[in-house]
Amino acid sequence: MKAVVFDQNLKLITDYKKPVAKEGEALIKVTLAGVCNTDYEITKGYMGYKGVLGHEFVGVVEEVNAQDKSLLGKRVVGEINCGCGNCEWCHQGLERHCPNRQTLGIWQKDGCFSEYVAMPLDTLLEVPENVTDEQAVFVEPLAAGLEIVEQLHIQPIQKVIILGDGKLGLTTALALTAHNLDVLLVGKHQSKLDIAAAQGVKTKLLQGFEIKKEWDFVVEATGSISGFEMALNLTKPRGTLVLKSTVAASKEFNLAPIVIDEIRVQGSRCGRFAPALRLMEAGKIDFKPLISAIYPVDKAIEAFEKNKEKDTLKVLIKF
Amino acid sequence: MKAVVFDQNLKLITDYKKPVAKEGEALIKVTLAGVCNTDYEITKGYMGYKGVLGHEFVGVVEEVNAQDKSLLGKRVVGEINCGCGNCEWCHQGLERHCPNRQTLGIWQKDGCFSEYVAMPLDTLLEVPENVTDEQAVFVEPLAAGLEIVEQLHIQPIQKVIILGDGKLGLTTALALTAHNLDVLLVGKHQSKLDIAAAQGVKTKLLQGFEIKKEWDFVVEATGSISGFEMALNLTKPRGTLVLKSTVAASKEFNLAPIVIDEIRVQGSRCGRFAPALRLMEAGKIDFKPLISAIYPVDKAIEAFEKNKEKDTLKVLIKF
Repeated sequence: MKAVVFDQNLKLITDYKKPVAKEGEALIKVTLAGVCNTDYEITKGYMGYKGVLGHEFVGVVEEVNAQDKSLLGKRVVGEINCGCGNCEWCHQGLERHCPNRQTLGIWQKDGCFSEYVAMPLDTLLEVPENVTDEQAVFVEPLAAGLEIVEQLHIQPIQKVIILGDGKLGLTTALALTAHNLDVLLVGKHQSKLDIAAAQGVKTKLLQGFEIKKEWDFVVEATGSISGFEMALNLTKPRGTLVLKSTVAASKEFNLAPIVIDEIRVQGSRCGRFAPALRLMEAGKIDFKPLISAIYPVDKAIEAFEKNKEKDTLKVLIKF
Repeated sequence: MKAVVFDQNLKLITDYKKPVAKEGEALIKVTLAGVCNTDYEITKGYMGYKGVLGHEFVGVVEEVNAQDKSLLGKRVVGEINCGCGNCEWCHQGLERHCPNRQTLGIWQKDGCFSEYVAMPLDTLLEVPENVTDEQAVFVEPLAAGLEIVEQLHIQPIQKVIILGDGKLGLTTALALTAHNLDVLLVGKHQSKLDIAAAQGVKTKLLQGFEIKKEWDFVVEATGSISGFEMALNLTKPRGTLVLKSTVAASKEFNLAPIVIDEIRVQGSRCGRFAPALRLMEAGKIDFKPLISAIYPVDKAIEAFEKNKEKDTLKVLIKF
């Protein structure tokens, strides 16, 4: 089968071995997949991962290796962290922190940039009928945005600011606004801010924006250390700075301001899919304006090139 | 009056101007004061502070410039952050985050290493009769340790580890153990660990200690970046790393582990005095073993030298 593989180089392989659904797994024919910046980071060495890339997909279940065949033929999305099923984390529904987890296309498990992917049945969720593939393929990033409200109690009267108008910032802003929170998205690109503004998000250009320590929650979604430093300067004493991006870069900086202002720096990664699908089914967010391009799998390498271009939002790969 | 002043150099001045109690303030004759590492950091440039040093004291109220004279002649301790009294922070009892606060001997207010200090009446608490000066002088560091349980809900079944057996680590370990929490103190010095162990704290030497990501709460009290990095490696996914020390030093490091393990890094600074005095009155902690030396004010410069020596715990200055 065709598969987009990273192994020192990024390549499209046409005769990659088709996966087999093990006991408790389903074989899914992938129809649409999304390129994430994490995929790009992996091609620069992040996590030391080698194998099929990709962790955002929609597909149709072709085979089920289990008694319960109810998902057969169904359109599905799949949570990306596959836990061992036996540890304290998995028992709490926190497979995403299982120490022995495999993560689709990121850690010890071939990803979804291939014609077929095998996934444990309990990671799969059926896509509601009124949600198109082009919307459903955003479920993983949307779930990551909603992880913030799983981790933190944000009161409706509290002030949230999101830094960065890339995919991560836009998705998080749309997610939190859909939760009726008081959100301001700040970024460098009027055209990107306009996408969020058209769906009810308050926005402001970074240029000329006044830096004051007055925000209850600051979400760092720029992926840069300078963004982190600005975030610290926006967080109110005793406020919370949510760190969303796993940027490998590092820089010297002083930890004292975190102590003096008693700031909570909260790391935040993947979220559960069900609440994200619920928002999609309710038609609360339209992801179409975030799609910059759709490439057929044969042009997957071009899709990666497009993803690297400045101002690109989501690039999709069609199978 | 005699005062220990930092102004480019550290010096003992014998004719420093005696302070005057303004409206709403008391004039206190200082009897005993404690040297904190923050005092030492200030002599290296921290906060850019110049003036009388010191923020840990016990004294006797000699004058009250207010209608209510009830504290006259009483033995008192004083909270170190003096708020403006009119902002949202002060109204919440969080003077320690008032943007216009003065901080005793640290920011815009002469400290307590002098024969007299003037303090707002509402920062003063009477010392219970059964608490000696040598115990009461520890109220500020004890309150800082207890700040952790003001900020965080630590369940009695959760595991707490404290890194660092200096004054900060010992005081925090004693404070949290007195709250019946499950605390392990890890440090490099058997003699210091023994002080905590004698009061019921579980302790372990760092050498040979196994680093596993299994702790719900990790308190960084080493004041070093390597301590911070070790703390990250001890914090369980979704656990909390409490940053206690305002070390000015900085170093390159990668923020990704905070995101991947969804760690909460919680800055923690000063605490309220009342709960600390309550623990002292109940005789729950004995600070005497933490006293390394007591110097008369005339030898205050020597006290600072002693404080710098390796293995020194608390150095006190007697007036």
